[in-house]
Amino acid sequence: MRETSEIVLENIFQRRSVRIFTGEAVDHSELMTLMKAAMSAPSARNRQPWAFVAITERSILDQLAEGLPKTKMLYQAGAAIIVCGDSSVELQDGAADLWYIDAAACSENILLAVQAMDLGAVWSALYPYEERSGHVAKVLGLPAHIQPFSVIPIGHPAGDEMPKDKFRPERIHWEKWE
Amino acid sequence: MRETSEIVLENIFQRRSVRIFTGEAVDHSELMTLMKAAMSAPSARNRQPWAFVAITERSILDQLAEGLPKTKMLYQAGAAIIVCGDSSVELQDGAADLWYIDAAACSENILLAVQAMDLGAVWSALYPYEERSGHVAKVLGLPAHIQPFSVIPIGHPAGDEMPKDKFRPERIHWEKWE
Repeated sequence: MRETSEIVLENIFQRRSVRIFTGEAVDHSELMTLMKAAMSAPSARNRQPWAFVAITERSILDQLAEGLPKTKMLYQAGAAIIVCGDSSVELQDGAADLWYIDAAACSENILLAVQAMDLGAVWSALYPYEERSGHVAKVLGLPAHIQPFSVIPIGHPAGDEMPKDKFRPERIHWEKWE
Repeated sequence: MRETSEIVLENIFQRRSVRIFTGEAVDHSELMTLMKAAMSAPSARNRQPWAFVAITERSILDQLAEGLPKTKMLYQAGAAIIVCGDSSVELQDGAADLWYIDAAACSENILLAVQAMDLGAVWSALYPYEERSGHVAKVLGLPAHIQPFSVIPIGHPAGDEMPKDKFRPERIHWEKWE
């Protein structure tokens, strides 16, 4: 039996972007697990300034795809999660508003959980692109304090997309820069 | 034997911030593994605009701690990784510079790998705080194109810090906002 650490690390190393899906549905329970993983992310001062819209209806996935030139894979995805920031969560004593940093950690957790569950997904940016964010806000009826951050199409992989080897030792410095 | 997915998900759910360390050293090989995990993160247009400084020398950890009011746990940590953005990596065709989003995904990968390796760590923000970033850049001799993003003190946990239950079903919306 392999070690826990080996299994977790391999899942991180093997995570890849999946853009080609079978069209098969993704269960609500699977989406719940993914959003639970998202909410396990750390956030600045534990503020948890996030919210999620999980979508499985074909017509809504298609409407989103129509206005998102970089996210046409929504047409084949079984589902999508929109990771959002919630600006109504109050800031404390002069902290910078880092909701988009926190939303990024959420998004990465979703991708790693997807990989472990033998599903596929790709992170597509909405923030800080106003045209994309505006389209999503309109389709989903988001209130003004909810800012779309990323759209993550999710589905059963149909292609053979492989992880990239992105390890670059020259990006690592020891003790000081040089 | 437990399923891979269960092990990976539990690691995500159980990840917690560790701020109290034994002072025991962290191996170079462990730090290499953590930075390999970091570089496995996705990045906007696969630009990989990141760099890392891994620190194990007591005197440098102490110097960093001196100028970082929120990161005094560096005094007890066995090591630290500074996640940085590299603004010399070129942008393509009008893409927004989202290096801090990519650096956030790197930082989350490090925390999840730490958790799996029975180490402990906490994500402490440098960006967008100029005073903190300036101190780190000075201590480490960072060139102008390298922007410190986060400092992650790493060590062997000495306390009994537990994961927080942050699952909030009210943050989840189905199909549309309401």
